[in-house]
Amino acid sequence: MASDQPKDWRFKLHEVIYESNTPAGKAFDVGLLIAIFSSIIVVMLDSVVSIHLKYGKLFNITEWIFAALFTIEYILRLVSIRKPIRYVLSPLGIIDLIALLPSYLSIFFIGAQSLLVFRALRLLRVFRIFKLGHFLTEINFLTQALKNSVRKISIFLLTVLTITVILGSIMYLVEKRENGFSNIPESIYWAIVTITTVGYGDISPITPLGKFVASVVMLIGYAIIAVPTGIITHDIAVASRQKKEMPESCPSCSREGHDSDALFCKYCGSSLFK
Amino acid sequence: MASDQPKDWRFKLHEVIYESNTPAGKAFDVGLLIAIFSSIIVVMLDSVVSIHLKYGKLFNITEWIFAALFTIEYILRLVSIRKPIRYVLSPLGIIDLIALLPSYLSIFFIGAQSLLVFRALRLLRVFRIFKLGHFLTEINFLTQALKNSVRKISIFLLTVLTITVILGSIMYLVEKRENGFSNIPESIYWAIVTITTVGYGDISPITPLGKFVASVVMLIGYAIIAVPTGIITHDIAVASRQKKEMPESCPSCSREGHDSDALFCKYCGSSLFK
Amino acid sequence: MASDQPKDWRFKLHEVIYESNTPAGKAFDVGLLIAIFSSIIVVMLDSVVSIHLKYGKLFNITEWIFAALFTIEYILRLVSIRKPIRYVLSPLGIIDLIALLPSYLSIFFIGAQSLLVFRALRLLRVFRIFKLGHFLTEINFLTQALKNSVRKISIFLLTVLTITVILGSIMYLVEKRENGFSNIPESIYWAIVTITTVGYGDISPITPLGKFVASVVMLIGYAIIAVPTGIITHDIAVASRQKKEMPESCPSCSREGHDSDALFCKYCGSSLFK
Amino acid sequence: MASDQPKDWRFKLHEVIYESNTPAGKAFDVGLLIAIFSSIIVVMLDSVVSIHLKYGKLFNITEWIFAALFTIEYILRLVSIRKPIRYVLSPLGIIDLIALLPSYLSIFFIGAQSLLVFRALRLLRVFRIFKLGHFLTEINFLTQALKNSVRKISIFLLTVLTITVILGSIMYLVEKRENGFSNIPESIYWAIVTITTVGYGDISPITPLGKFVASVVMLIGYAIIAVPTGIITHDIAVASRQKKEMPESCPSCSREGHDSDALFCKYCGSSLFK
Repeated sequence: MASDQPKDWRFKLHEVIYESNTPAGKAFDVGLLIAIFSSIIVVMLDSVVSIHLKYGKLFNITEWIFAALFTIEYILRLVSIRKPIRYVLSPLGIIDLIALLPSYLSIFFIGAQSLLVFRALRLLRVFRIFKLGHFLTEINFLTQALKNSVRKISIFLLTVLTITVILGSIMYLVEKRENGFSNIPESIYWAIVTITTVGYGDISPITPLGKFVASVVMLIGYAIIAVPTGIITHDIAVASRQKKEMPESCPSCSREGHDSDALFCKYCGSSLFK
Repeated sequence: MASDQPKDWRFKLHEVIYESNTPAGKAFDVGLLIAIFSSIIVVMLDSVVSIHLKYGKLFNITEWIFAALFTIEYILRLVSIRKPIRYVLSPLGIIDLIALLPSYLSIFFIGAQSLLVFRALRLLRVFRIFKLGHFLTEINFLTQALKNSVRKISIFLLTVLTITVILGSIMYLVEKRENGFSNIPESIYWAIVTITTVGYGDISPITPLGKFVASVVMLIGYAIIAVPTGIITHDIAVASRQKKEMPESCPSCSREGHDSDALFCKYCGSSLFK
Repeated sequence: MASDQPKDWRFKLHEVIYESNTPAGKAFDVGLLIAIFSSIIVVMLDSVVSIHLKYGKLFNITEWIFAALFTIEYILRLVSIRKPIRYVLSPLGIIDLIALLPSYLSIFFIGAQSLLVFRALRLLRVFRIFKLGHFLTEINFLTQALKNSVRKISIFLLTVLTITVILGSIMYLVEKRENGFSNIPESIYWAIVTITTVGYGDISPITPLGKFVASVVMLIGYAIIAVPTGIITHDIAVASRQKKEMPESCPSCSREGHDSDALFCKYCGSSLFK
Repeated sequence: MASDQPKDWRFKLHEVIYESNTPAGKAFDVGLLIAIFSSIIVVMLDSVVSIHLKYGKLFNITEWIFAALFTIEYILRLVSIRKPIRYVLSPLGIIDLIALLPSYLSIFFIGAQSLLVFRALRLLRVFRIFKLGHFLTEINFLTQALKNSVRKISIFLLTVLTITVILGSIMYLVEKRENGFSNIPESIYWAIVTITTVGYGDISPITPLGKFVASVVMLIGYAIIAVPTGIITHDIAVASRQKKEMPESCPSCSREGHDSDALFCKYCGSSLFK
């Protein structure tokens, strides 16, 4: 509890950067979100030829200002935390780093203009918004339900992929190369477009037999979409029941935000269950 | 209970305009619905060039008759209620006003023919139909379920938007400008068209790598549609359980139509729960 | 129980035509299904120009044989039942009559070749197949669930229609006539194509603002599909609970096939619930 | 328990080929999966004209090596099991045989290059992967839920097919041959494309009445997709309740992997329920 000088400013900085309970912390987070969105909008506008020709130079300068800002922020994050390595290796830390890299890589690889597109990855940082909006309970809840579903959903996706490979190969046989099904990977692409009910129409069956097979693919796609829905609906209900059994706030210190698999309060250490 | 003369006609008018229990009230509501639908159909037909050339003048006159009718109705609504300001600021009151404005604005802004299209907003008034059909319980029930879902659905939509921005940017890199992905906003539009399984086909991938990325987008879209469905299904079940615990009609006066969060009867004031 | 001669053959005929417990009854139903499917396939093939030119006359003769067969069957149905009026006015009776009419109407209205297409309505009779497969319990169950959903689904459909009318009108404003949105009904058609995620691509937005509005329509369509699903899933669960409380077979005489709202056995009259 | 020499190597072979508990068994399964995937990728690449021209001969040789490997594997499977007939007639055995045949048939029917496409059926063997990943419980669970749904889903599919036949025939009447609806089967294909919300756009309505009918088809398709989803969601919940009542591991010997309809442990024979 006794704190020497450097620990003190570090603690304050930590509160501003990592927490959002204080007015300063909230302002920092809101400012960060505005910077992220602005920088994404610059990337988007810069990709439009007519706008790039007019404002290209301005965008270039803006981009470097953003890069500098995010770099300073990243350094502050490293400085204000006790175990910076942990932050660097945490999911949010990795995202923060990935969002920084493209700007710097473009210096060394001058031709690598294409790397600039990866600045769109900065948008991933937008999920910090949920910290502001007290959405953590809902996020934990949804994450739990999706975790429960992962195995069943992957069985479902493997089945769908197998169906598309086999039906795609059959369509390659039925409709010939002339009708757009020019090879098996192309036919599988068509089968995925069809079974997911996207249906671009860039490739579509022309022969009567091909149309019959396509109808079967569509009806399969139409019927099996029900399976992942059923799985996730079920797992949301299960996660909801689990959540209900767990108190949202600690019965001892009444603080919230516990993980769904927590047994003890992470603030006061007392049992979350009576 | 003792009522002076003016209060009396106002009360009767209120009964006709705002209630639908009496024959006159029902007739008023049915007449209003017919007027709304007719005026919408006139707007639609007037937009068809060939019909406009033939009947344009007739439609113009009809339109002003409708505008006059709806204005009179709006004034009567204001007159027949005790706190007209409350009605004006209520959701239904705002809709009624919005539905009136376009006709009048077109006088002042003569060029603003385009404003006439906003007369379609009158259709919003059609939801009054539910008052006639005793659908209020179902509406309350669905509204409650959707309210419970709002936070989870907005997390879902933000995630989908982030995915489309990032995958759209990647597609802009993979497929070049020549293949229709002419800038990042355009690519994001494509990603939304694909992930929602709409699939117009106005922009579609051409290179093998682009088709591969597109397949991934489709499968993601196909699998994550299950998430909002699961959320809403769950929240409907929760809302249903809440409703069951609440009696539909007051146990004291047996009148219905209470809000889902009501604790006391809004007619007689006694507790809705024993 | 004592039966005179005519009653006897009528009873036997009734058993063959209306029941499917006896071998003769089963054979009659299977034969009928084969006749229905064959006649539908003839209608389909006859509509293909190249096949019509070759076998048109043969199809014409086949068609009249089917018409004769179905007429005889209809008469037998009338004769073998005690209250023929009831059958004529029952849903199945009306379908049987509608399936007969097109053939005869084409005699009187010689130009009305188009009426022949209505012979496809015969396919409606195919639902008799479920009598054979003991699907009645499942059908009753699904019908009950859908009945519970009717009001909520109609609120949903009215909401979707209102959204499409308003968004269609806005798109008519945003994208001009030149871009395919030639009038409001056309724009509404586009909005329905988009919100249901069908996405033909015959009309698609061209201006940036139009693409933005379209993206909003798609995301709305993508998110609200969850609503009817949630409603029906919930009502299936409710119908299932109701069914569980009701015994499938009568506890007194153990015969099955009771309506979901039955309180007493329709065969022996004893209560279905203890 | 006492085993003569031949029984011994057969038992060991069985353990390697059919089980995946031992390191050797696991390695065998992983190797098999790699071989299957490689052979599928060769089939895919071979169908691309430009790649076939370059590496066609190499692919031909690779293909024969794979055919030899899978033949040896099939023979080993027959040899290492006590009742080979049972394996041959089991679902996995039939798949293994089907995956072998195309290579050999192409020797006898030299023109039948098209048969080579059926080598894609080898992918069906990929479901062995689940044995490795301990997905058996999830697979049993999903299979059980789908089994419960079969009857209801088939009622649903028959209803959808009837709707598409009737609406397809009506569209053939409304839109004439000139607009792409050239015959009834074609119109039914269009109806399936539309009701499943695929929407290629290769055939789309042109007349106002046609567009109106199409809108109805789309809204029907949009609303009824909810039905199979509701059915499967419900049956997953039912299957989950059934599963919960059954212990996952035997209460006597604690081994897992019992079928969902098992009453006794298949390893020690004691009752799975107390």
